[in-house]
Amino acid sequence: MKLNAITMGDPAGIGPEISVKGLMSNETYRDNTLIMGSEKVVRFYSDMLKNPYGLAVIDKPEDFEKGKINVMNAVDISMDDFEIGKVSSVAGDAAYQYLDKAIALAMEDRLGAVITAPLNKEALHKGGHFYDGHTEIFAELTGTKKYTMMLWSDIMSVVHVSTHVSLKEATNRVKKDRVIDCIKLAHEAMFKMGIEEPRIAVAGLNPHAGESGLFGNEDRDEIAPAIKEANGNGYNVFGPLPPDTVFLQASKGKYDVVVAMYHDQGHIPMKLLAFDSGVNVTLGLPIIRTSVDHGTAFDIAGQGIANEESIIAALDVSTRLN
Amino acid sequence: MKLNAITMGDPAGIGPEISVKGLMSNETYRDNTLIMGSEKVVRFYSDMLKNPYGLAVIDKPEDFEKGKINVMNAVDISMDDFEIGKVSSVAGDAAYQYLDKAIALAMEDRLGAVITAPLNKEALHKGGHFYDGHTEIFAELTGTKKYTMMLWSDIMSVVHVSTHVSLKEATNRVKKDRVIDCIKLAHEAMFKMGIEEPRIAVAGLNPHAGESGLFGNEDRDEIAPAIKEANGNGYNVFGPLPPDTVFLQASKGKYDVVVAMYHDQGHIPMKLLAFDSGVNVTLGLPIIRTSVDHGTAFDIAGQGIANEESIIAALDVSTRLN
Repeated sequence: MKLNAITMGDPAGIGPEISVKGLMSNETYRDNTLIMGSEKVVRFYSDMLKNPYGLAVIDKPEDFEKGKINVMNAVDISMDDFEIGKVSSVAGDAAYQYLDKAIALAMEDRLGAVITAPLNKEALHKGGHFYDGHTEIFAELTGTKKYTMMLWSDIMSVVHVSTHVSLKEATNRVKKDRVIDCIKLAHEAMFKMGIEEPRIAVAGLNPHAGESGLFGNEDRDEIAPAIKEANGNGYNVFGPLPPDTVFLQASKGKYDVVVAMYHDQGHIPMKLLAFDSGVNVTLGLPIIRTSVDHGTAFDIAGQGIANEESIIAALDVSTRLN
Repeated sequence: MKLNAITMGDPAGIGPEISVKGLMSNETYRDNTLIMGSEKVVRFYSDMLKNPYGLAVIDKPEDFEKGKINVMNAVDISMDDFEIGKVSSVAGDAAYQYLDKAIALAMEDRLGAVITAPLNKEALHKGGHFYDGHTEIFAELTGTKKYTMMLWSDIMSVVHVSTHVSLKEATNRVKKDRVIDCIKLAHEAMFKMGIEEPRIAVAGLNPHAGESGLFGNEDRDEIAPAIKEANGNGYNVFGPLPPDTVFLQASKGKYDVVVAMYHDQGHIPMKLLAFDSGVNVTLGLPIIRTSVDHGTAFDIAGQGIANEESIIAALDVSTRLN
């Protein structure tokens, strides 16, 4: 089993704090996961949180010391180089460097899963890295074209046909081939999670799934044919289902995973059902990547009060997928 | 206080059954509400449900008999004229006639609120009435241009900028003036429900409310100016807020009502939070109209097993608004 790595995210946010809390929470994660970050920043939070396990500062995964919290010092900055809770180019660039290092090691098979703590997009751009977010960085650095965002929780999981685009553009991206790709990625992910024959619900795009073309044609012309083809290829797929009831049905156990047509169609129900325990998993990459399902929370950074539930859930899913 | 009327909806669906169950449930509703429907159909369900109060068949609201379940026989059909659970022109036309009669009496001030049981759109069309649904019928028969659908529940309420249009068309309908109209209608409705200074959240249209124009411009160019103007006019409005967290915040009590930009943005969270207890209220009409928040449920019609929670909630809201 390869080691996993948490990339600690924007140093000015709650990322370093929840990284330390996550590894303090559980021996399994402490012994299979290192933090890719900045030693002095991790030490600041380790001291604040009275980490009883101590830190091991290592240069490569192969030097991992079990029993301690292990840190690779990918960027040597200190707490004086940025201000807690503020956007800065220093912190934005550092957040990128942690990812670059972790992804490179994972591509060399020297790390297993990468668990990402949150970054700040504005800081990332100020730091000279013009990406929409984590997922786009992973796609580019691993040379991946077909990928998708899954939000996973114990209650329900959702795979997205599109994510960070305008709603108008999202309607343009509902195409048969893309829906089929997402059905396959959803199936593979749930299978890896231990479900032999995942029951996959596909949401419609339009109100009432278009009501036979009365409210838009995408449900009939793109989504329905994708479902038909996927069923023909042996997948266990249902839909297109009315978007306003499919998530309720899935949350009650009727389906294992829902393919959602756009960001908020999937995010609205997931945030309601699993706000602190949702895990973001990028499907389709050659490496495993999970993430917390929240942002940098600059407003509460540096106080030791950040909630570590989401990173613990992300560590759990990484451990199960690795 | 004027009497209210339930229009019993498509006779082949669960409408007649839940109408009788709703009035059996509570003396207040039995004494302030009549059923606008078909006597023989109501009698069939009254017998099935062993209604202990008896029926009073009346010709006009002024003949109302307290203590009984009152029925106006707007269309004289029997159970032999249609098949339970099937689409038919007879049932679709009858559903329309109940509405026509109830709305006319309400416009003459001889009825207060109209509570609608579900109709079947296909049957409605077969019956020769080419409307998208209840709301459009009310708008036309009352000559109303500015109206909107509110979903109300004890947990949270949502007002919709658009409803039964394709998602692509919904993005076109997000315009400053329409958003302002919806804010005003939301304010008035919550005020009538007893909230002195309603806190109104306005959801963005795009992911993360557009993230400063990165994912679409409607949040910045249409929604934000509407909020600014409404606040300038004394309304208590917040946003545009990220669609994937605003409903969670509202459900926790931070806001009294949310203005949603399209059908599923509002319906997905409402169905998750209040599936059986949601009430559909049409705002902006000269008369009060509430409705159950579900369909005709043809698959379980005629068996006496339909859930009356939603019509009881609709009767409750009508009684409070009248």
